Amino acid sequence: MPRAPNPDEIGCEEALIGEFWAPLAAAFPGALGLDDDAALIAPPEGRELVVTTDAIIAGVHFLPDEEPGAVGWKALAVNVSDLIGKGADPLAYVMSVALPSTPDRSWLRSFADGLAAAQKEFACSLAGGDTDRTPGPLTVSITAIGTVPAGRMVLRSTARPGDRIYVTGTIGDAFLGLALRRDPGLGARCKLDDAAGSYLAQQFRRPRPPMGVIAALRTCASASMDISDGLVKDFERLCRVSGTGGHIAAARVPLSPAGSTVVANGGATLADLMTGGEDYQVLATVPEARAGEFETLSTAAGVKVAHVGSIESLATGVTIRDAVGNAMAFTRSGWDHFRDTSVS
Amino acid sequence: MPRAPNPDEIGCEEALIGEFWAPLAAAFPGALGLDDDAALIAPPEGRELVVTTDAIIAGVHFLPDEEPGAVGWKALAVNVSDLIGKGADPLAYVMSVALPSTPDRSWLRSFADGLAAAQKEFACSLAGGDTDRTPGPLTVSITAIGTVPAGRMVLRSTARPGDRIYVTGTIGDAFLGLALRRDPGLGARCKLDDAAGSYLAQQFRRPRPPMGVIAALRTCASASMDISDGLVKDFERLCRVSGTGGHIAAARVPLSPAGSTVVANGGATLADLMTGGEDYQVLATVPEARAGEFETLSTAAGVKVAHVGSIESLATGVTIRDAVGNAMAFTRSGWDHFRDTSVS
Repeated sequence: MPRAPNPDEIGCEEALIGEFWAPLAAAFPGALGLDDDAALIAPPEGRELVVTTDAIIAGVHFLPDEEPGAVGWKALAVNVSDLIGKGADPLAYVMSVALPSTPDRSWLRSFADGLAAAQKEFACSLAGGDTDRTPGPLTVSITAIGTVPAGRMVLRSTARPGDRIYVTGTIGDAFLGLALRRDPGLGARCKLDDAAGSYLAQQFRRPRPPMGVIAALRTCASASMDISDGLVKDFERLCRVSGTGGHIAAARVPLSPAGSTVVANGGATLADLMTGGEDYQVLATVPEARAGEFETLSTAAGVKVAHVGSIESLATGVTIRDAVGNAMAFTRSGWDHFRDTSVS
Repeated sequence: MPRAPNPDEIGCEEALIGEFWAPLAAAFPGALGLDDDAALIAPPEGRELVVTTDAIIAGVHFLPDEEPGAVGWKALAVNVSDLIGKGADPLAYVMSVALPSTPDRSWLRSFADGLAAAQKEFACSLAGGDTDRTPGPLTVSITAIGTVPAGRMVLRSTARPGDRIYVTGTIGDAFLGLALRRDPGLGARCKLDDAAGSYLAQQFRRPRPPMGVIAALRTCASASMDISDGLVKDFERLCRVSGTGGHIAAARVPLSPAGSTVVANGGATLADLMTGGEDYQVLATVPEARAGEFETLSTAAGVKVAHVGSIESLATGVTIRDAVGNAMAFTRSGWDHFRDTSVS
C-alpha cells in the first residue's frame, strides 16, 4: 500500500546509519566507519576486556513519553554503570535498536544527541550496531566494552569479613524522580521546591554513574558492583556470591537534600529508597587498611563516598540495621527485571 | 491482581539464570558463572577481538509460532555468520532476551537447548546476559565476540579489480524455506518431495553459516562479508565500500537441488533467490593467485565454494549478468531491516 511521502522519513537502514550512527563512531577506528559487519577491538597491551549488556524497553525501563535524548543517554549510562562497578574504563559499545515506527529526523536527532552527550561523559564511542523495526515498544540493547589492566577487574565475589562497605553518591533519587513523574502532586505535598524536583527527575532520566571512582576501586576495593536494582538487593547479592554476611546501617545511607526532604515529609520511607532501584551508583567493599586511600582517591576525583557498614562472616547473616541496631524487614529487596514489568 | 499459581512459572530473574543460562556459560571462565555484572574477556596473546551485534524479533526475523529451539539457534547463528564473514573464530557471546510473558520451563528448556546446540556447532559460549519482560514481541539481541590474529580481520572494503568472487554453500534456500511456510501448497506445485521441503525449511529455521571457511578467508581472501540481506544487495555493498565495480554471472550462482527444482517449476525466479536474504553464507573476493589455495582449503574443510564473478574497476559498475551477458534488472536488491518489517 503506498504511503504519503514524509519529508522527515528515513528511507533505509543505510541512510539512517550514515546520518545518525556513523558520527557517533567517528572517533573509534575499530568501528570502521560502521561500513563493515563487525568492529575490530584491539585491547591495549597488558589490558583485558570487560563486557556487559543491558537493554532498556519503553514502558519497562523508561516512560513511553520520555524525550528521546534521555532514552539515548540512559541506554548507555546503565551499561557504563556496570563497567564502572567492575573498575573498568569504558572503551566502546555496540547498540541494537528496535524502532516501533518509522522515526522522523527530529526524533533520531534527539536520540543521537543524547547518546553523543553520554559518550562524552563516559569516554567511549559507538563501535557497531543493528537497527530494526519492531511491532513492539522501542527497545535499545547495548553491549558495553571496557578495559582493565590484566588481572585487575574488581569482582563481586571477593568481599571479605572485616571489609568496610561504601556506597557512592546518594541513594533513592532516581526512584523519587520516577515517583514524581507518576504523581506530580508529590512534590508539593513534600514541600519540594522546583530545583529539588528537577534534580530528582534528572536522576531518573539521565543517571550519571560515577566515572571518578574507577581508579579508586581498582586500587583499593576488594569487591564491588553497581547498584541498579536497589541497594538492599544488590548488597544481598554481593554477600551471597562472596560467601559472607554483612550489615548496612540504614542511618548511614547517604540521601540527597531532596531525598531527605521527601522522607522527612512522609512522601517515601527510607526503605523505599533502599529498595527502589535505578541508582546507578557503586557498592564497594574495602579492606580497613585501604579505607583512607579509597576515600582520598574518590574524593579527589569528585566522587562522594559513604561508609555504610561492614562485611561480616557468613554466619552473621545479611542485614540492614535501623538506628538502634535491629534488623529491618523489607517486603521487597529491589527491582526484578523479570517479575517487575513496568515503570508506566 | 493475584494470578493462579503455575508450577512451571519461573519466579525471578536469578532462578532463570541459574537454571537455564548458567549451564550455557559453564565452559567459559570469563563468564564468572554469570554471578557478576560483566564478563572478563582476555584475548589470547597476539589476537584481536571482532565484535558484532544483531537482534532477532518475533514476527520480523522469525515466525511468531517458531519453535523456541530454532529461535535460540538462529539468534546465535546470525551473529556467528558475521564473525565468519570477517575470518574470525567465535569465542563468546552476550545475550539480552526480552520475553513477552512469563515463560514456562518447557519453553525455556527448548530455547536454551537450541542455544546449546548452536554453541556446540559454532564453538563459543555464553559469557553474560540480561533478561527482561517486554509488552512487545520476543526479542533476542546477541553480541558475538570472535578473535583473529592481530591485523588479520578480513574487511569488506579491500576487494581489488581482478579478484575472483566466490560464494559459499547455496543461495536462496532460506528464502524458499520461508516461502514454503507461508504457502504450504508451493511444495506440491513445484514437485518438491518431503525431504527437499524439509531441507529448505531447515535452512530458514536453523541456518548453518560455514565455520569451515574461516581459515581459508584469513589466508586467501582480499575481502569478505556474510550474505544475510541478499546476494545482490550484499555484493553491491562490498563493491561500494571497496570502491570497485564487479559482476556476478547469475548462471554460476550455486543453487541446491531443491532450489533448482523450485525455479525449474516456476515457484520462484533466480532473481528471487538472489535477493531474498537470510542466506548466512559468505561472499569473498580472492586474488587470482590465491584462488587455487582458497578452493583447496575450503573444500578440505567441508565448505563448497563457487566462483561466481569478478571484481572490476569502479567505472564498469556493479552488475548481475544473465546467461548472454546482459545486466539483469531487479525491483529490489535485498532485505532492508528497516524498510521490510515482517516475515509473518
